[in-house]
Amino acid sequence: MVSTHKIAILGASGYTGAELVRLIALHPGMEVVALTADRKAGQSMGQVYPHLRHLDLPQLCRIEDVDFSGVDLVFCALPHAMTQEIVKDLPENLKIVDISADFRLEDPAEYEKWYGHVHYAPEMQKEAVYGLTEFYRDEIKGARLVAGTGCNAATGQFALRPLLRAGVIDPDGIIIDMFCGVSGAGRAAKEAMLHSEVSEGTNPYGLPVHRHTAEFDQEFSKDAGREVKVIFTPHLMPANRGILATVHVKGDAGEIHAALSQAYENEPFIVVLPMGEAPATRHVRGSNFCHIGVVADRVDGHVRVFAALDNLTKGSSGQAIQNANLMLGLPETMGLEQAPLFP
Amino acid sequence: MVSTHKIAILGASGYTGAELVRLIALHPGMEVVALTADRKAGQSMGQVYPHLRHLDLPQLCRIEDVDFSGVDLVFCALPHAMTQEIVKDLPENLKIVDISADFRLEDPAEYEKWYGHVHYAPEMQKEAVYGLTEFYRDEIKGARLVAGTGCNAATGQFALRPLLRAGVIDPDGIIIDMFCGVSGAGRAAKEAMLHSEVSEGTNPYGLPVHRHTAEFDQEFSKDAGREVKVIFTPHLMPANRGILATVHVKGDAGEIHAALSQAYENEPFIVVLPMGEAPATRHVRGSNFCHIGVVADRVDGHVRVFAALDNLTKGSSGQAIQNANLMLGLPETMGLEQAPLFP
Amino acid sequence: MVSTHKIAILGASGYTGAELVRLIALHPGMEVVALTADRKAGQSMGQVYPHLRHLDLPQLCRIEDVDFSGVDLVFCALPHAMTQEIVKDLPENLKIVDISADFRLEDPAEYEKWYGHVHYAPEMQKEAVYGLTEFYRDEIKGARLVAGTGCNAATGQFALRPLLRAGVIDPDGIIIDMFCGVSGAGRAAKEAMLHSEVSEGTNPYGLPVHRHTAEFDQEFSKDAGREVKVIFTPHLMPANRGILATVHVKGDAGEIHAALSQAYENEPFIVVLPMGEAPATRHVRGSNFCHIGVVADRVDGHVRVFAALDNLTKGSSGQAIQNANLMLGLPETMGLEQAPLFP
Amino acid sequence: MVSTHKIAILGASGYTGAELVRLIALHPGMEVVALTADRKAGQSMGQVYPHLRHLDLPQLCRIEDVDFSGVDLVFCALPHAMTQEIVKDLPENLKIVDISADFRLEDPAEYEKWYGHVHYAPEMQKEAVYGLTEFYRDEIKGARLVAGTGCNAATGQFALRPLLRAGVIDPDGIIIDMFCGVSGAGRAAKEAMLHSEVSEGTNPYGLPVHRHTAEFDQEFSKDAGREVKVIFTPHLMPANRGILATVHVKGDAGEIHAALSQAYENEPFIVVLPMGEAPATRHVRGSNFCHIGVVADRVDGHVRVFAALDNLTKGSSGQAIQNANLMLGLPETMGLEQAPLFP
Repeated sequence: MVSTHKIAILGASGYTGAELVRLIALHPGMEVVALTADRKAGQSMGQVYPHLRHLDLPQLCRIEDVDFSGVDLVFCALPHAMTQEIVKDLPENLKIVDISADFRLEDPAEYEKWYGHVHYAPEMQKEAVYGLTEFYRDEIKGARLVAGTGCNAATGQFALRPLLRAGVIDPDGIIIDMFCGVSGAGRAAKEAMLHSEVSEGTNPYGLPVHRHTAEFDQEFSKDAGREVKVIFTPHLMPANRGILATVHVKGDAGEIHAALSQAYENEPFIVVLPMGEAPATRHVRGSNFCHIGVVADRVDGHVRVFAALDNLTKGSSGQAIQNANLMLGLPETMGLEQAPLFP
Repeated sequence: MVSTHKIAILGASGYTGAELVRLIALHPGMEVVALTADRKAGQSMGQVYPHLRHLDLPQLCRIEDVDFSGVDLVFCALPHAMTQEIVKDLPENLKIVDISADFRLEDPAEYEKWYGHVHYAPEMQKEAVYGLTEFYRDEIKGARLVAGTGCNAATGQFALRPLLRAGVIDPDGIIIDMFCGVSGAGRAAKEAMLHSEVSEGTNPYGLPVHRHTAEFDQEFSKDAGREVKVIFTPHLMPANRGILATVHVKGDAGEIHAALSQAYENEPFIVVLPMGEAPATRHVRGSNFCHIGVVADRVDGHVRVFAALDNLTKGSSGQAIQNANLMLGLPETMGLEQAPLFP
Repeated sequence: MVSTHKIAILGASGYTGAELVRLIALHPGMEVVALTADRKAGQSMGQVYPHLRHLDLPQLCRIEDVDFSGVDLVFCALPHAMTQEIVKDLPENLKIVDISADFRLEDPAEYEKWYGHVHYAPEMQKEAVYGLTEFYRDEIKGARLVAGTGCNAATGQFALRPLLRAGVIDPDGIIIDMFCGVSGAGRAAKEAMLHSEVSEGTNPYGLPVHRHTAEFDQEFSKDAGREVKVIFTPHLMPANRGILATVHVKGDAGEIHAALSQAYENEPFIVVLPMGEAPATRHVRGSNFCHIGVVADRVDGHVRVFAALDNLTKGSSGQAIQNANLMLGLPETMGLEQAPLFP
Repeated sequence: MVSTHKIAILGASGYTGAELVRLIALHPGMEVVALTADRKAGQSMGQVYPHLRHLDLPQLCRIEDVDFSGVDLVFCALPHAMTQEIVKDLPENLKIVDISADFRLEDPAEYEKWYGHVHYAPEMQKEAVYGLTEFYRDEIKGARLVAGTGCNAATGQFALRPLLRAGVIDPDGIIIDMFCGVSGAGRAAKEAMLHSEVSEGTNPYGLPVHRHTAEFDQEFSKDAGREVKVIFTPHLMPANRGILATVHVKGDAGEIHAALSQAYENEPFIVVLPMGEAPATRHVRGSNFCHIGVVADRVDGHVRVFAALDNLTKGSSGQAIQNANLMLGLPETMGLEQAPLFP
């Protein structure tokens, strides 16, 4: 019998919050005991998200009204910057999985450069472990604060990190074109995210340089043991969920496929497709899986590496639960085995 | 510890077959031991449905190559008419949940009228139990052959059956306008189902009278104790999953809401919304839930009843598993508790 | 050679404003000389709507900065209520085609009932001509102020007005279920209109009673010579453009088809399909056409009448230009002959 | 007064055929006198494409039943390979604009390599002029046979040709990632193009190397005066119309923008956006426009060039009419001035 850990979700009214609730509903080792949403305090989760109305959940409340004494772990899905203010005042015994961008960068100077202000909780910034489970598993197990990765950042890293570590690709001139579902922009009402604006077409966004690039710089440089600066161009895809990274690298396709296959051999959620096959975002929708494909080009030495995942699941809330499982001593895959929803 | 029942899926290469596999993957009481698909025999399920490639599944084979001796229950997702030929030759000890239209109608004459040929397995037609779980639970528990309902037929019945049984609406002049996701048409390559033909618009289909009307006639007439002939008009909705039934009835909104609330009070999958609220298909996507709403009109005595479900889950494969659970003595909700996927 | 009329568009930054510009770009008898958009004053139309950037257009300005002395006709696409304030102060020689809801209702009491405040320009309300061209052609020719219809209201009226006038249907118990594209909600940033909220599903909206019902009441009662109260339920369709009205009436299908065919025999934009065929919104997208179909039901005396149009074109801006053509003495179809865009 | 040229469309039942009819309906210098579609001979165009039912068009017939004596120009929208057989037997005085892939490649050996069989009309292959209007305008004016470009091929060329000609980019290592609407796959019923398979996601296709690459090789090598081999990866986008090319080049962003601006300065259909802005496929939908943007990367010397067009219009049928205008001595833009349809 699994012992049940008490969970609070701060910022539960966004899409990542709802996704956490969806996943925890099937999780035998977690129980939601508090849900906060400042502007929607007093409402039920079923009012805010009718797809969750069959669940027996605590009412949405303000953060200051949460009794953290009975809580084991907090998922923090608050807006950027506000997170820093909130997290630093949480009880010290609480484990925290943050989904915002606030603790992803290690270097305060880098943080300030990309986000435009000094960090409000620099001590916790130092302590935070970067949440890409497959690459920081051991550190995450012992961490108090894990910083969930950007969803785009996760996708690109799954394609590239084993290659940089193995030294099988040229670390210069790496190009990442990415196609990203709309839900990544969140539930805030923005003209640019209206159905009429988004559907039936595509466009690049986040130009000239998207903030998730900072995560690439930090992590890829570690892997390569030298500075790596990728060229990253995200595109908005008229679909709610899913990210596809099309990554252009220079190397040998066979070596690349072997390096990925070996790195992910025992990973429960990473599937490396047979050489020459490419993934589709539809085939990971709603799941914690990431599909990776390698396809050589007719131009010698040029290889395409494709990675597909669901931005709300493996790219965010599913990843967060995977990390929480490790932090709580639960089996890593617990609650995350749902197959993708297709069609 | 749950004992695991051995499952065969005949016709696994269609969408309902894939949906069965998706759901059974999380089902602690079922294990897939055989998957058939005549034209795709020899392929793996992961080749045919890459979203299922992480699962350890038997290879697709021809029906004649299945060893039924180790099978407890068969889901039959074969094309119409072929089902009759196959099912009548299955070993007598096998429990069968059929997803086709072949055993839904009780009266051979009605079957012939709607489907254009005599029934090939009239003895089994007599034996079959209609698979709308909430209304045939006891019969299903003891049945050998359960006939899954049409997905449209299920949606309309959830809205109307308690009202006809309670006698709170006029059984004449009932109008059902329905909006149906594209996946209901299956995976067969048809010009009319191409993305370019279906997306970004709607149209009524199945005119002048859709075959699922036969199920309405049969079941509603039983409930009302007299002939009931509804006016049913399905429309194609540019979405993959989901059916919304907008049902127009004459009666008192309060009595109607009360009759539905009472009928479904203890149903695990049927949610009756508060009076005046309407459901959305997005809020049941990928789940076995059905949301029902009642909204009075400003025209006195006219009431709208709305029902929303996922055609592949509650309307087909989820319903099939719900029935199989009953037939196998398992908890009815086992494997079906996944929350809807939104957005 | 066509003489060119000078056109101002007030409120050009909404979808109906952009649609007017799109259509006028091909119109040999109209030239845009002023475009207003208070919050976007100073921007070019190409910045606000990049699909129009190839056009040579005046910059967006504030209404008070327009020199109306050189203007022949104003299209008014302003928000509800504000229109009344603006329109009453426009120079008296200006012809005005209003696209808002402000002048559709003739009775000040009805206006107040549906819109919650007294009308600010009651004199002009009396003078305004209802803009459903096919039914008010003569009045429109001589009008100073024409009130464009609601897009839903137009769709329902095309299906029903000839039938009520000809007396071939029962005026009681008429049911209109409508499926409406997202662009009808405009470009304002609303959570409910985000791609993630709208795509891949449907739901009824505007419950319990939608404001366009007021137009139905007013116009249908005129046609029938008695009070007519329809039951109207709009549904949000995950598509940008298009409205389908599925109208349930009691009558004889042959008489109904004949009445529609006769009424629209010489109409350039209304196409009555052969008996038994139904329209699709995709087949009128981006055009000023309305397709109408009649399909009998198996229930004797029950008939479905379907009407499909593009809410932004025939339902709004195309209709407005059709009316403006009449008011300016131009051929009614001028600038409106574009075929629908499919797929 | 424009004299009207008599037009025949061979293969009118595909999407490019329907698009030709849509555009010619507004073209004052062309009149459709024959429409062929072998399998649909005897049907009206309105039956096959209800969005065109308001037009007065000749009935679909078989090619052998066309009287070419009254025809000035033929648009040939037949399947690959069949085109060669048909075109070589057409009367010699006929002007021909071919939309298939059959005459795009100049070198019979290249053709055989990419298409797997010897060319059936090698003499005409020699004579054919490549139909990218902006780059072959003079040759097209005098041509008898113009070979329409691939829609992907057109998009990539608009982004790159001026740059290769001006020598402002490195001709090695050019990477083209492309996002292509579904209608490019045509109206043939294929499982992979079903709404359920395509919507709500993306995937690369045409791997490892797409046939349109052959056009890139041929044309870019001409421009650069040496062999150029781009790396081209198309992706399927869940939208009906539109192609976005994201092109990665090495060079100076200022020089690149200047070269494009200069090359397209007087082009009526090519819009070069201000430096740093990127196009969206939605903003060219249904039109003959191509929008091009240039955005520098933070990695020095790396530049993204984006091009967006509508595959059925500028990428195929609109281009064909633009070429036909030149061949017939008509103004090049005649019939092609429609603004894009947004939203």
